[in-house]
Amino acid sequence: MTNISNWRELETRLTMAKEIVVTMHMNPDGDALGSSAAMALLLSNLGKRVRVISMSPVPDNYLFLNKLYKIEQYEAGSHNFFLAHCDLGIFLDVGDLSRAGKVGEALQKSSAPLISIDHHPGNGHKRLTMEMIDTSACSTATMIFDLIQAIFPEKLNRQIAEALYVGILTDTGSFRFSNTTARTFDVVRHLLGYGISPPEIYQAVYEQSSIARMRLLGMVLSNLRFELDKRIVWVVITQDMVKKVGGDPDDTDGFNDLLRTIQGVDVSLIFKERHDGDTRVNFRAKGKIRINETAKKLGGGGHPQASGAILKLPIDKAIEKTLPLLIADVKAQL
Amino acid sequence: MTNISNWRELETRLTMAKEIVVTMHMNPDGDALGSSAAMALLLSNLGKRVRVISMSPVPDNYLFLNKLYKIEQYEAGSHNFFLAHCDLGIFLDVGDLSRAGKVGEALQKSSAPLISIDHHPGNGHKRLTMEMIDTSACSTATMIFDLIQAIFPEKLNRQIAEALYVGILTDTGSFRFSNTTARTFDVVRHLLGYGISPPEIYQAVYEQSSIARMRLLGMVLSNLRFELDKRIVWVVITQDMVKKVGGDPDDTDGFNDLLRTIQGVDVSLIFKERHDGDTRVNFRAKGKIRINETAKKLGGGGHPQASGAILKLPIDKAIEKTLPLLIADVKAQL
Repeated sequence: MTNISNWRELETRLTMAKEIVVTMHMNPDGDALGSSAAMALLLSNLGKRVRVISMSPVPDNYLFLNKLYKIEQYEAGSHNFFLAHCDLGIFLDVGDLSRAGKVGEALQKSSAPLISIDHHPGNGHKRLTMEMIDTSACSTATMIFDLIQAIFPEKLNRQIAEALYVGILTDTGSFRFSNTTARTFDVVRHLLGYGISPPEIYQAVYEQSSIARMRLLGMVLSNLRFELDKRIVWVVITQDMVKKVGGDPDDTDGFNDLLRTIQGVDVSLIFKERHDGDTRVNFRAKGKIRINETAKKLGGGGHPQASGAILKLPIDKAIEKTLPLLIADVKAQL
Repeated sequence: MTNISNWRELETRLTMAKEIVVTMHMNPDGDALGSSAAMALLLSNLGKRVRVISMSPVPDNYLFLNKLYKIEQYEAGSHNFFLAHCDLGIFLDVGDLSRAGKVGEALQKSSAPLISIDHHPGNGHKRLTMEMIDTSACSTATMIFDLIQAIFPEKLNRQIAEALYVGILTDTGSFRFSNTTARTFDVVRHLLGYGISPPEIYQAVYEQSSIARMRLLGMVLSNLRFELDKRIVWVVITQDMVKKVGGDPDDTDGFNDLLRTIQGVDVSLIFKERHDGDTRVNFRAKGKIRINETAKKLGGGGHPQASGAILKLPIDKAIEKTLPLLIADVKAQL
């Protein structure tokens, strides 16, 4: 947990501010969105004027969060004035300020103090007034919980609890990823005291697959390929496949997690053909195998067991380049 | 939670017994197996001679529980003497005594007192000396936890905690089914105090898919069929499909849960052709829809949102019989 003296400094800054922007990384996930909604609800309860502005649209399965607090997608005309004149900017779950897109750029140009709260490693951006990092936290949402407990415990309510639960649920993969700890369950148990319903939230987030997504998954699972004594499984998703099922190429969340469940598999990867003809590669690893170094060699990055890269190559060339590199890197770790 | 006075009577019976059989339902799941291992560990720590005897083999993904306590598959020659001469029989998670197969029959013929501990509704079998039922519990494992807390709190240890966690994890579908409550997280939080690792247990249980299972899932998802404005999704698994992928027809756990995640779907069902040519139907429902009455009409039963039946019909006839019945039942609930 973050040192309480930091929370005190943060308390002063939050108390002084009147007009606040909360933002998050592009292509936001449940933790970025849930943490932002929770933070906005808290500050709004404290009488602040708060806008949550996201560079990317909110994915369909998180639209229900708008009922808790409106998450606006950035538009220069609607937002630039507020971004330039707010008196506090809060970055949640961003990792690197550049990942907040034009919202981040506008905040950096403003004269407002900027604060980052994150469970990813920080990078000490010089424009930040405060950077609160807790890499032991399973999610940014648990850090917001810590903040509320430390300085505004009476402000926690059912809506905030629901938003925080979304962050914890999704960043732990429903309590299955390696970041799930006793502390995770402590926080969740506390949140459940506010009457939230885990199964309802689960359904809202996860039980929203399109039929096209299921058919695409069917095609993917019918064409599994293996390397290195079946320690590596890989699949291909082309624009043609996506068109055939009438699907959305971005709607493949969770495919890699499913591939990783195959017995004996250490690494799963998905090669996805992009609209522009380039190729996106996503890696997942389990056990003792790490794949972020491989992703780095390809110009990407990420977590030790969940990384990715975009290769400026057509899909067949991307496969030719990636597989030998990955096989060598995995072999070196066996 | 079960009334403490019942636990006191149970304490007396457990303390008096010397040779104990613990058994569970056929085709055991994580809760049946985890609860049994935990109960056996507890009683063994109390100095009892305990054998866990299951009518069915332990599924591959639960074999790791044998490291905690040996779960033996019933064999007349090895077990009948012990079953006839034990001085206590404990049924865990069985629902109905008949679901324990020949192990249950042998115990009923013995002169030992018989106890059932279960979170399914009981049916007051006359041969039972004690029947402890708590339908508000998410799992039988949480009832074993209650028992230990009530009468042997100092006996809880890491091994027992791990076995109990398996039961809770699997019966709540990793904290997503509607039986997940604040109490669930209370118990889990307590178990985590004994140093167990949720991600490791998750991997052991769930990340053990065979390649054949994945390919079978691929075939299933490539052939989705819909009824009633896509409120009902159904799929077919034939012996031919299973042979084609070199799979195991019983290895389809979780397929229905995945189908149920499709947006707008209220009911998912799987028609599975059995070795003997009969057809097994499995139903899952979500939201306000209940399907156990439909299952009953087909000679089966189960929970309101997870039921099944075996039809003595070839698969095409089973489909012809089931679909109109189901469509009418779902329509009546809209």
